[in-house]
Amino acid sequence: MDAPQNTTLRVGEDRPIRLDSGLDLGPVTVAYQTVGRLNADRSNAILICHALTGDHYVAGINPVTGKPGWWDALVGPGRVLDTNRFFVVCANVLGGCLGTTGPRDINPATGKPWGLHFPVITIGDMVTVQARLLDALGIEQVFCVIGGSMGGMQVLEWAASYPERVFTAVPIAASYRHSAQNIAFHEVGRQAIMADPDWRGGDYHEHGVIPQRGLAVARMTAHITYLSETALHRKFGRRLQDREAVTYGFDADFQVESYLRHQGSTFVDRFDANSYLYITRAMDYFDLATEYGGTLANAFRATPTRFCIISFSSDWLFPTVESRAIVHALNSVAANVSFVEVESDKGHDAFLLDEPEFHETLRGFLDGAARHRGLPPTAEGAR
Amino acid sequence: MDAPQNTTLRVGEDRPIRLDSGLDLGPVTVAYQTVGRLNADRSNAILICHALTGDHYVAGINPVTGKPGWWDALVGPGRVLDTNRFFVVCANVLGGCLGTTGPRDINPATGKPWGLHFPVITIGDMVTVQARLLDALGIEQVFCVIGGSMGGMQVLEWAASYPERVFTAVPIAASYRHSAQNIAFHEVGRQAIMADPDWRGGDYHEHGVIPQRGLAVARMTAHITYLSETALHRKFGRRLQDREAVTYGFDADFQVESYLRHQGSTFVDRFDANSYLYITRAMDYFDLATEYGGTLANAFRATPTRFCIISFSSDWLFPTVESRAIVHALNSVAANVSFVEVESDKGHDAFLLDEPEFHETLRGFLDGAARHRGLPPTAEGAR
Repeated sequence: MDAPQNTTLRVGEDRPIRLDSGLDLGPVTVAYQTVGRLNADRSNAILICHALTGDHYVAGINPVTGKPGWWDALVGPGRVLDTNRFFVVCANVLGGCLGTTGPRDINPATGKPWGLHFPVITIGDMVTVQARLLDALGIEQVFCVIGGSMGGMQVLEWAASYPERVFTAVPIAASYRHSAQNIAFHEVGRQAIMADPDWRGGDYHEHGVIPQRGLAVARMTAHITYLSETALHRKFGRRLQDREAVTYGFDADFQVESYLRHQGSTFVDRFDANSYLYITRAMDYFDLATEYGGTLANAFRATPTRFCIISFSSDWLFPTVESRAIVHALNSVAANVSFVEVESDKGHDAFLLDEPEFHETLRGFLDGAARHRGLPPTAEGAR
Repeated sequence: MDAPQNTTLRVGEDRPIRLDSGLDLGPVTVAYQTVGRLNADRSNAILICHALTGDHYVAGINPVTGKPGWWDALVGPGRVLDTNRFFVVCANVLGGCLGTTGPRDINPATGKPWGLHFPVITIGDMVTVQARLLDALGIEQVFCVIGGSMGGMQVLEWAASYPERVFTAVPIAASYRHSAQNIAFHEVGRQAIMADPDWRGGDYHEHGVIPQRGLAVARMTAHITYLSETALHRKFGRRLQDREAVTYGFDADFQVESYLRHQGSTFVDRFDANSYLYITRAMDYFDLATEYGGTLANAFRATPTRFCIISFSSDWLFPTVESRAIVHALNSVAANVSFVEVESDKGHDAFLLDEPEFHETLRGFLDGAARHRGLPPTAEGAR
């Protein structure tokens, strides 16, 4: 296997990115990973879109953490996203903190980190930047755009904005618009960050501090929503952490408390608080129906794209009912769509985990679509 | 109608309260409200147990807020808890901040507020204090002990600890043990409070500050769990707050954000942060099965109490499955138990709201039990 390649590219040097807010931004640095080889007719690319706190390190070893990439189980030679056959691309999103331009970077107008002067971005803006990246890579049409959670939002935006550029689209554990409950959880996280005095109105980098406590609380809240009640019960139940009895105090008596505290404190090391604000905001703003005059089906009229919609039965953050709404909209415009609700008790996080039914569903769909597209099992004429 | 009486009483002057932690505490001030009149044979008392952030102001006008008491719709002459017939008692819980001894009060040993030196308390300790209050009021047996959420935990503890003192027990939207998910949400709230520099290790009163931001975040998180996704969608959906379009900023663009911020900021004015820590901890520690050797049914062997268990279909904080587990345990010891899952889309908060099926269920149960107990429609020989 060719090892995953991590690199950066600048887009918008010639013309800036026109954001949904009306502002222009650019040039923008895009950090991305590629795995496998682009074939001769440039028809075998799979664009992976990552989730809220994800990154472009999908396969191999993540150089930042030293651990396997977040979709390493799915991406590789012979795996579901078979890198003998496909050319996989994943870019860190606009507004992120892993290499693509975001609020931690230097604002060229001031010479200081952007902080809250960074423009508020949308899922559409993330997709615009990805489209520029594909332009630069010479990829006119991707074989597949795929992603879970916020990644699934980008998939839907891709299919709506660039139907001719998307042969297949696979939104997983996603929604066409962020729900009131999900906005509420995000707002709690943002308030926790902004309540931390070390946030300093967003200018913490200049003061040499980071809003660790606020960001940890934000992560802890969000983390609960990624798991199902069943998964939490099975993993931890009411088991105590290295003790025989409760301590009648405020230490982490319960394993679930210790686990959450760990999730909070390790997150702080790898994620930027302002990026968290911007990316959650982008998700909150996402409403594909409103973008298309109030009717979701309008986003997909005469779409040539083949869709595979996947949800997980115990996902209460992006429940199946939201995926069904997408399926209904696609059916109403006679789109080519298949839909699977995977039985799983692992909650929203199932899209990141080793769920055999999910993997087999995906493998079957991609195989069929690849045959239809005429892609041989091994990338031909790869360069 | 006789107006609700608000008063305080000291218990444990003669012998202190032996807490579950093994520590002694006392004397303890108990703030409580009574409505209606105790009858001649002291058989018509209803003890109401309040929830996490509740208080003893159930009926009439709450003198602190100027608004109706939290169960005023249920408590009064001719209402479901008919104060022509019943003598209603509700006490602020141990560890609270509305008049009953809690961490905000002065530690007699130091002359300073208890803060984190207040002993960690349990649901059992709250019930012990309530039992002392009833002793002082000369009430040997209550006709009914009733409460929702944490109030329902107290009801179960009452029935288990003092079966002969409880003629009927009505735990509503409750559980016999706090789930891993619920512990997780509480832990996030506690971490938010403790992360606020103004918390000062719990000694904020001495410094003339309060951890407003942390407490507000804790409340916001918890508040989401009190509502159903459906209720949030109906109340707010993705509607904007006094604006035509999103602002591409971090103001409260969405109504749900504005609502949550309001919930957070008003809570800070009425609740003590340390009380929030102690009372959430008491809920986390609650596990009636473990208290009785690992088998819930053991808590109710040969119980003479009549139970009415009520849950709400859209309550995901204390879902119906938890109430069913209580029913199964009671059935296994041949207890007298009825169970109703009320269809409601209002989530956990339904127990505080005007839900006709809930009110009628309760009225029917109390009427039947009152006839069985020989209580006439109007308190006789009341004093």
